[in-house]
Amino acid sequence: MPISTELTALLGIRHPILLAPMDTISGSRLVRAVSEAGGFGILGAGYGERTRLETETAKLEGFTKPFGIGFITWSLAKRPELLGIALAARPRAVMLSFGDPAPFAPDIKAADALLICQVQSEEMARQALDCGADILIAQGTEAGGHGASRTTIDIVPAIIDFAAGRVPVVAAGGIADGRGLAAMMMLGASGVLMGTRFYACVEADGAEEAKQRIRAAKSGETVRGVVFDWSRKLMWPSPFTVRSLVNDHFRHWSGREIELMQRADQIAVEYAEAKAAGNFEVAAVFAGESVGLIHDIPPAAEIVGRIVAEAEQSLQGRRNSIAFVG
Amino acid sequence: MPISTELTALLGIRHPILLAPMDTISGSRLVRAVSEAGGFGILGAGYGERTRLETETAKLEGFTKPFGIGFITWSLAKRPELLGIALAARPRAVMLSFGDPAPFAPDIKAADALLICQVQSEEMARQALDCGADILIAQGTEAGGHGASRTTIDIVPAIIDFAAGRVPVVAAGGIADGRGLAAMMMLGASGVLMGTRFYACVEADGAEEAKQRIRAAKSGETVRGVVFDWSRKLMWPSPFTVRSLVNDHFRHWSGREIELMQRADQIAVEYAEAKAAGNFEVAAVFAGESVGLIHDIPPAAEIVGRIVAEAEQSLQGRRNSIAFVG
Repeated sequence: MPISTELTALLGIRHPILLAPMDTISGSRLVRAVSEAGGFGILGAGYGERTRLETETAKLEGFTKPFGIGFITWSLAKRPELLGIALAARPRAVMLSFGDPAPFAPDIKAADALLICQVQSEEMARQALDCGADILIAQGTEAGGHGASRTTIDIVPAIIDFAAGRVPVVAAGGIADGRGLAAMMMLGASGVLMGTRFYACVEADGAEEAKQRIRAAKSGETVRGVVFDWSRKLMWPSPFTVRSLVNDHFRHWSGREIELMQRADQIAVEYAEAKAAGNFEVAAVFAGESVGLIHDIPPAAEIVGRIVAEAEQSLQGRRNSIAFVG
Repeated sequence: MPISTELTALLGIRHPILLAPMDTISGSRLVRAVSEAGGFGILGAGYGERTRLETETAKLEGFTKPFGIGFITWSLAKRPELLGIALAARPRAVMLSFGDPAPFAPDIKAADALLICQVQSEEMARQALDCGADILIAQGTEAGGHGASRTTIDIVPAIIDFAAGRVPVVAAGGIADGRGLAAMMMLGASGVLMGTRFYACVEADGAEEAKQRIRAAKSGETVRGVVFDWSRKLMWPSPFTVRSLVNDHFRHWSGREIELMQRADQIAVEYAEAKAAGNFEVAAVFAGESVGLIHDIPPAAEIVGRIVAEAEQSLQGRRNSIAFVG
């Protein structure tokens, strides 16, 4: 008994579950697995490494299920030619996050792809709707990776009220199980976008050690800040910060960000070396507050199936102790 | 068609909606209004002003609906004799927040009252269950007034998983409408505790100007910090901070907390004068992230009725675009 929403109809998918386009983690293998399972895989185009985008889109050639490609908008603005490579892969949708979607909206529309915009405020939602966004993603601070400060339970109804039914709104940040999907639908969302849950998954292009750390982490063991961006000499525009698991590197530099910036050249080298060596007490594991809900590393299809079954059960009131007394 | 849960059965109430025991705001008038409407009013015993507690409990004499009395636990520990005054009023439950409930649990149990403990972590939940808590409240950082850092969408399922069905869990923080109640029930909560929504209510013992500011405030216009505590020379134990509407006083002192502490004697006098004068650009309006969902100042009964109707509609799938396709 599938859960059918405006979103599933619009994207042509079976389940209202979207894969977050995690840079280097959401590759073609994970995109295929999520879309095959009836969700919507979104390829992470990340900071715009052209070769990787070409390789990964090539692997999606001939794939018949709907899928998307997601960009970091301010990064795409530096290499706008990458949009053409993405559109040539015939995605059902292009997702833009963290920047002004206006320069890219016309080409996306012209290619007959849907425009998905991730937003963290009403002002960003207005901007997205003004340039023709077909789907809004309301992202709470609980999300792994980059995001802003307002929480999911605040930003989701705020964006739903702002959108006022014009487009479907998808909830992101802190969701990793069927309870979360059901809860977001009660708030009025048409589906959920999940990153961290799919990171800890067989088909994700992440290091096994990183997946194990997500599996083992408890709620409250992630933190939002700039330490890991500055350690890579990545200067993100305000108000965006990055959420990751706490590790030795974060504990050392948190509160010493100015010194970190002053020594950025040296630290960036050390950081890159640690990352290459798979040392996750230095290198970041970008993950969200939902780590506390994640206890295994199954295939994507199992994640989708489990979440849908649990959400259906919740939505039908068979779980918990809810009883409707007539 | 009421929503009946373990919580409503245990407390003997009609709707799974609890009034947060807001210090000086949740007086006997608001408690009566919420309980008369079928929710569960909880009197705010605050920092333990004996005269106010005696006056307000006296006004509840002969009241036949179930109600509770809520203490700031670390404050009660300084004036433990106040618990006797509270228990003499025959509350259905005593709620303890922000401290060790163990010293007070035996007397509460002996008086045949239920013990409600508000928690912000699994460790606090363990402590509460160890001393016989009958109901846990999982409070997210979105809450107005005092709280900690984990968000509602994180802490609620975490505490539900921790409690593992032993006691009902109530969600607090960021909830002000029926969508929120329905969402929290999907997460597995047995009900919600609301402060800010009932502050902007006819029967709340707050200044009209404060209520109007809550009504007018948008999402994202509240902030958590220590400025307003230190301005009152109230040194709360870590990790608790206080969420309030942003105002001139906060903007001035945020980031200058050390100077504020150094000049605390003088500032406390100025702050008290401003508060007495009803100057809310200095004095705090303690309010949560749900301000964005609050647009009016109705009677408590209307709030309860509206939330229940909206939640029922959501839970029955009549809202949004959710369709179950058989």
